[in-house]
Amino acid sequence: MLIQPRTPTGTLELLPREQMVFQHMLDTIRRGYERFGFVPVETPVFELKDVLLTKSGGETEKQVYFVQSTGAIQQGHAADLALRFDLTVPLARYVAEHERELAFPFRRYQIQRVYRGERAQRGRFREFYQCDIDIIGKDKLDSGYDAELPAIIVQIFEELKVGEFTIHFSNRKILLGLLAGFGIDDAEKQKLILREIDKLDKIGADKVCELIVALGLSIEHADILLRLIQHKGNKDEILAALDGLNARHQVFEQGLQEVKRMVDALRALGVPEHRTRLNLAIARGLDYYTGTVYETLIDEHPEFGSVCSGGRYDDLASFYTKSKLPGVGLSIGLTRLFDQFNAHKLLSAVPNTVQIVIFPLEQQYDQYALKLGTDLRKAGYTVENYWEPGKLDKKLRYADKAGMPVAILIGGDEVAKGTVIVKDLAAKTQVEVLHDNLLQKLGEMLQHPGV
Amino acid sequence: MLIQPRTPTGTLELLPREQMVFQHMLDTIRRGYERFGFVPVETPVFELKDVLLTKSGGETEKQVYFVQSTGAIQQGHAADLALRFDLTVPLARYVAEHERELAFPFRRYQIQRVYRGERAQRGRFREFYQCDIDIIGKDKLDSGYDAELPAIIVQIFEELKVGEFTIHFSNRKILLGLLAGFGIDDAEKQKLILREIDKLDKIGADKVCELIVALGLSIEHADILLRLIQHKGNKDEILAALDGLNARHQVFEQGLQEVKRMVDALRALGVPEHRTRLNLAIARGLDYYTGTVYETLIDEHPEFGSVCSGGRYDDLASFYTKSKLPGVGLSIGLTRLFDQFNAHKLLSAVPNTVQIVIFPLEQQYDQYALKLGTDLRKAGYTVENYWEPGKLDKKLRYADKAGMPVAILIGGDEVAKGTVIVKDLAAKTQVEVLHDNLLQKLGEMLQHPGV
Repeated sequence: MLIQPRTPTGTLELLPREQMVFQHMLDTIRRGYERFGFVPVETPVFELKDVLLTKSGGETEKQVYFVQSTGAIQQGHAADLALRFDLTVPLARYVAEHERELAFPFRRYQIQRVYRGERAQRGRFREFYQCDIDIIGKDKLDSGYDAELPAIIVQIFEELKVGEFTIHFSNRKILLGLLAGFGIDDAEKQKLILREIDKLDKIGADKVCELIVALGLSIEHADILLRLIQHKGNKDEILAALDGLNARHQVFEQGLQEVKRMVDALRALGVPEHRTRLNLAIARGLDYYTGTVYETLIDEHPEFGSVCSGGRYDDLASFYTKSKLPGVGLSIGLTRLFDQFNAHKLLSAVPNTVQIVIFPLEQQYDQYALKLGTDLRKAGYTVENYWEPGKLDKKLRYADKAGMPVAILIGGDEVAKGTVIVKDLAAKTQVEVLHDNLLQKLGEMLQHPGV
Repeated sequence: MLIQPRTPTGTLELLPREQMVFQHMLDTIRRGYERFGFVPVETPVFELKDVLLTKSGGETEKQVYFVQSTGAIQQGHAADLALRFDLTVPLARYVAEHERELAFPFRRYQIQRVYRGERAQRGRFREFYQCDIDIIGKDKLDSGYDAELPAIIVQIFEELKVGEFTIHFSNRKILLGLLAGFGIDDAEKQKLILREIDKLDKIGADKVCELIVALGLSIEHADILLRLIQHKGNKDEILAALDGLNARHQVFEQGLQEVKRMVDALRALGVPEHRTRLNLAIARGLDYYTGTVYETLIDEHPEFGSVCSGGRYDDLASFYTKSKLPGVGLSIGLTRLFDQFNAHKLLSAVPNTVQIVIFPLEQQYDQYALKLGTDLRKAGYTVENYWEPGKLDKKLRYADKAGMPVAILIGGDEVAKGTVIVKDLAAKTQVEVLHDNLLQKLGEMLQHPGV
């Protein structure tokens, strides 16, 4: 009785050539984070249940996966471990646990998988990669840092060749301050209004207007809000519009100053103007964020939703420490992004990590082939030595199926003449090359040594 | 009420400077695997229970972690997911599932964490990295491949600078064939005898002799076996001793031929002679292995046990497919190796991934600092822009604590003169450098651009 080999639903498992594309994206993201001085952190896949589930009864907890060893199950113990559902809670725990050993502002990147017991459906993953950066201050964190994160993402997304994209940002203090200025100073009510504003794209302006008026806003105030969140102008125009409101509420003023500082810093960092957009409609429902908020949209595919989101928070780890740890962070949801791009055939091809395969035409040239492989690896190429005896046809089919760019054939004639046959497997051409000229020829065929 | 931030026992969580060392080791291993033409595979952290636990009631199953979502627990369902406990079962499932899409011999590397519900004690991990390579054939796999794997490991371990090490190898067919030649042809009895031989280092030759004689071997035959497994000669001497036995059992002959082919190939691959040792005492208790077996010892620290083990198997995925898939594989247990080396202060330092931190001395130079940071990143350096206002002392303490090599200070005098102050934080020296000469100066201080 054979067992049918299959993976659990909601996981993304790739064939090797796809995995190379995914790996290239992971590498690009990591390199981008490191370029800006972020340091690596990895945390265990599971946390103690009481540490992970600090807030009880939330939507998140319903999706948590619990972990139990056979022994614990047999002894009837309840699970005391749970899989992380994001990288933010583990970061909070990490920073609180290692607070005295870390240098602040603490700039960490973390690229690991997270787990959610989502209902199974296309595009919903139970296991997916998050690629997070956060900057955590001790007691305070300069608002200039809020400009740095989008600058990093712009470089990374340009390298990833995801097409045109725009990072939309806002600062929650602007709308919250405006609402307070309009006399809506109940925090719960403010939150409800922001939540309706978040639906602008889905339900349209008229419906949003109706809903926020129902929540207590006057028609005039609702109108001001709706003009702001639908403003399609550039940053300077929107900033001028905000200045023109003459709204003097302190929270509004603070938000406006933070946005201005951020816009200046984005320019100093050389971020192309069209890559970021001040969009006051970005409210992000999560109460977690207290200032700047970000969402990233692929221009041609707004239906993908935000592929990189985050924001500023006042206090990272209040469940674990009395220290005040404000921070700002961004997260790329790579598994979902990869899956969407893959489904739309938008992924850029990447070179095979295997550059050269060497086929001895008869077994007596095995050792000759091994030595050649060793030499080519020393020259920086990635090289497979193929050992199986058999017909050349079969060998070439193998190289084709594996998607390798170059094959080198070694037969008796060639060994006698001091040559090898070099095949360009994509172009389906071949050429006989003197051993002494081999490295030059490979240099022409393969852009650069791979390793 | 604060919750004490802490990780579950049996997990290894590192501070950023340690994580950089660990990451450097992971990168070195991956690069080493790719250099020899292995392709990447990643599998989900959990498998379906019936897929993972093909053999019931084994030692392994006792250590398996089961995974259940909140919803499943509430509905009283038994867990249907379990965390992988090695990378071999997921490989078997992967190859069987994707058999028609893969090119054989299939050469994959997989570097991921695995999970075992071990009893908590120093050096026992519940979560640990395995770094596996396997070559899987369809129907057959040339025995030459058995030499390639140690060649790869030798390169990687030399790059990792783990000190002197030796890969011990044998071929189980040699001892099994000898036993059969001695009239012990019951497979169970053969296995019991190999298991006793595996204990040689722990209990000594006399005790092993006593135990295997008790299992039915004659004193003369036990003596032959003991001389072989204690043979300290080089490969040629041991091969000569085996030839001299005139044991004509077919299994023995086959094993001997395979070892000879492997020794030849190791030499053709340029593996230094002292890095591998033919050691017939390496029997490896696991029934799984059917030919070549490997163990890797750190010469100065045999007490670490084998840090990289594996072997040849006849059929990878018989639970999932009727196809015969013989293979050979090796695995580095990186978490344990790292932990042992760390505990003995044997780890080589690696450069900080953050090369340069820029401190504007007053806030008015923030934008100047941002532009300089952008320029240096374009030149290939990893650069942190520090924004917090405050005293220079505090900034330098930050850079020290984070272990950064170079700081650049920007103040009014320097901006006026077109210079910057460059501090070597390890040497505690500083020098004023003209903007135009900055890249040259950094090139002298930092070995090479980091990204």
